[in-house]
Amino acid sequence: MSTTLKPSLYTCLSPALLHLYDINTSVVVIIDVLRATSTIATALHNGAKEIIPVDSVDECIRIGKQMSAITAGERDGKVAEGLQYGNSPFEYPAEFITGKTLVLTTTNGTKLLHMAIDNGASEVITGAFANLDAVCNYLIQAKKPVLLGCAAWKDRVNIEDTLFAGAVINQIQDHFTINCDSSKMALDLYHSALPNLFSFFKNKEASHFLRLSAFGLDKDMEHCLTPNTAPVLPVYKEGKLII
Amino acid sequence: MSTTLKPSLYTCLSPALLHLYDINTSVVVIIDVLRATSTIATALHNGAKEIIPVDSVDECIRIGKQMSAITAGERDGKVAEGLQYGNSPFEYPAEFITGKTLVLTTTNGTKLLHMAIDNGASEVITGAFANLDAVCNYLIQAKKPVLLGCAAWKDRVNIEDTLFAGAVINQIQDHFTINCDSSKMALDLYHSALPNLFSFFKNKEASHFLRLSAFGLDKDMEHCLTPNTAPVLPVYKEGKLII
Repeated sequence: MSTTLKPSLYTCLSPALLHLYDINTSVVVIIDVLRATSTIATALHNGAKEIIPVDSVDECIRIGKQMSAITAGERDGKVAEGLQYGNSPFEYPAEFITGKTLVLTTTNGTKLLHMAIDNGASEVITGAFANLDAVCNYLIQAKKPVLLGCAAWKDRVNIEDTLFAGAVINQIQDHFTINCDSSKMALDLYHSALPNLFSFFKNKEASHFLRLSAFGLDKDMEHCLTPNTAPVLPVYKEGKLII
Repeated sequence: MSTTLKPSLYTCLSPALLHLYDINTSVVVIIDVLRATSTIATALHNGAKEIIPVDSVDECIRIGKQMSAITAGERDGKVAEGLQYGNSPFEYPAEFITGKTLVLTTTNGTKLLHMAIDNGASEVITGAFANLDAVCNYLIQAKKPVLLGCAAWKDRVNIEDTLFAGAVINQIQDHFTINCDSSKMALDLYHSALPNLFSFFKNKEASHFLRLSAFGLDKDMEHCLTPNTAPVLPVYKEGKLII
């Protein structure tokens, strides 16, 4: 394949940098490994009918009542006050979530998703290690420009979302033109983290490791850093994430 | 030394993220390896009396005339129209620059410096590989919080400034509390780039490598990635960088 025919790939390391990238013609991949997009893939894989990502806790409660749906979400790593469930993939096994609608709000992931939509993104999917291969396979066959959008933590660049961007780039780089230092740094970080992403994450004492570990959530983190536990492709359509 | 007594260290990977950090009580290190802060260290090491960093080409010309100073700067990697000199450390040997005042404007570095000043930074120094050890030695003895501020490229995160942040962290990390994923990623990138930073930078086809290489500036880049060629500490005081 000639280099000039390959679509571009960029990585946006923080929502505060989103305005630098062309999101209108790209497939935008929303990445919030800990834990929004891991939980989205898991709930849909386990049979959830749809997930409605919302900006605020109030809206989550309002829409949840209106649709008789499950309300879920976190603020600062804990279940948000007034919501029923949290942001852990383990809260959504098939026997609980099958056929149900989940209304979800999180600190970073749902915020970035709405930023992308509000700024004119035409195609938005969500990615996490849980659905790594599904995302990669889709991006390769779509043959469109790609923007890997890291949700980060309150706009601060984080290791786990960057690692996932690196994992995607590792699989699909031959199909894209990548003139983007953030992407190259993400790939390098991913290679440096192999073979055990959770050990790397723990040994680095990443900010989110310290935050969630204090809540006893090591098992969540290890699960969220494991590839392909929920091999589905969540796509945003008319206000909902579906597969 | 007890952990609780160590000052904090953060890395800001792009000027667009500067608002996330407390710059008022930190030593802010402005980093623009290619090439503003490399040239600043070199010119001062070679005897320049002072360097006046300015925002715009027009202001550069105006102040240059007013002070009968040398005007220099670049836009997009080339000498800016209307200015006398560019942004290469090789343009400022001792026989030319000794005793002179240099008025300098660049695409990213001088912009970040003014952002920091305008937002209340009380202490600003400049860093590049050219003065790596001088910066590290100062930060260790200052015992204050540190913000490593990468100038990046038009707000996009770049490899070379992140690499320098990593090189600083590699030397001084034992003296600081670092709960900052960007810093950990920078350190990891630096380790990955050793032993030959320029080879790493070239092999990665970093954005700035491609940009400057197209202008035949490989020699500049290799020089700017070489540690301690200009062992001075440029400090910003009353509108001027001096040593």
